[in-house]
Amino acid sequence: MPDLFEVVLGQRACRSFRDDDVSDELVLRCLEAATHAPSAENTQPWEFVVVRSAKQRAAIGGLMSSTWVGGARAVSAARLEPGLLADVEQGAQGGIAAAPVLVVVCGSSVRAFASTLPASVYPATQNLLLAAAALGLGSAMTTLAVHRRPELTALLSLPEHVEPMAVVPLGWPARPLGPPRREPASAKAHREVFGAGW
Amino acid sequence: MPDLFEVVLGQRACRSFRDDDVSDELVLRCLEAATHAPSAENTQPWEFVVVRSAKQRAAIGGLMSSTWVGGARAVSAARLEPGLLADVEQGAQGGIAAAPVLVVVCGSSVRAFASTLPASVYPATQNLLLAAAALGLGSAMTTLAVHRRPELTALLSLPEHVEPMAVVPLGWPARPLGPPRREPASAKAHREVFGAGW
Repeated sequence: MPDLFEVVLGQRACRSFRDDDVSDELVLRCLEAATHAPSAENTQPWEFVVVRSAKQRAAIGGLMSSTWVGGARAVSAARLEPGLLADVEQGAQGGIAAAPVLVVVCGSSVRAFASTLPASVYPATQNLLLAAAALGLGSAMTTLAVHRRPELTALLSLPEHVEPMAVVPLGWPARPLGPPRREPASAKAHREVFGAGW
Repeated sequence: MPDLFEVVLGQRACRSFRDDDVSDELVLRCLEAATHAPSAENTQPWEFVVVRSAKQRAAIGGLMSSTWVGGARAVSAARLEPGLLADVEQGAQGGIAAAPVLVVVCGSSVRAFASTLPASVYPATQNLLLAAAALGLGSAMTTLAVHRRPELTALLSLPEHVEPMAVVPLGWPARPLGPPRREPASAKAHREVFGAGW
């Protein structure tokens, strides 16, 4: 099993998957990692809807695709370099939904305040992505579909207090993922006050 | 170096620290992990203000303490069991601010939409916490001080577009941390639709 830094420094979004299935055992190992994230007051306000059915995945993929075509693409096209744009587009237009498993990560405001959900649910989602990477699975943090909360709520029978916050595909990468491209940490670090540099 | 699952499944909030310092080298390793989180369009919209000065830490600690006494405590007291309440209170009332390093994790809306910041900045914060745990450091996700954005903005000279989103102490734990307490992942997992169980 790879060490923490190897996984963290190598994590990269995967948007193309092989057809091979992912076992319940592996899905549950990823969810176990997710549920060990910190949360406000240890309320553990996350819920995970694990979607395998081709019909449900296609419906979620349809929400991604229509959100992409209906506006997100125009915004991204002006900002992204062509290679990344093509990869994101491929994911939004069926690549993500073709993964054998989609995990819809939700926050529940029954035990936590809605305003505190992001600081708990996104760390849990990150644990899920890291666990997937450690197991050799491809995954990605996607939020296109959650902009369509009413439709997603209907598809997944979500109660009113449960907010979908990310859709994470799990599958075996169609091809090896290259290394991530990041600015150096020292360029993002400031001593004592903002702008002081490192 | 411990493997990914060992770190993820053992992570726990630390709110009491020894006086010993944490080197720049270790801080930068934690920030390098943080900057490898996924972000919308790979915009990497995070900034980290690394606070070491006793005066700045005390000022941030003052914001935590006054937010706690001024309302957060009353909310938590009704919800938490006494052991956890005492630990959180000790952290809010000086324990967190006594760590030799406070990392104020911020989101910048220059390159990313403000609405997309939580899904990028909190995964980065989680990477920071996991890296700290892998290195033997204690840390915690805290958000009490960020409710006082105007005061924090003034203290850290944050530009208007930079939003403080978490304050993470880094230090050596005063005592060993016990194992985290979590509900089983299967209790949080649903097949195909919410409420179907696992």
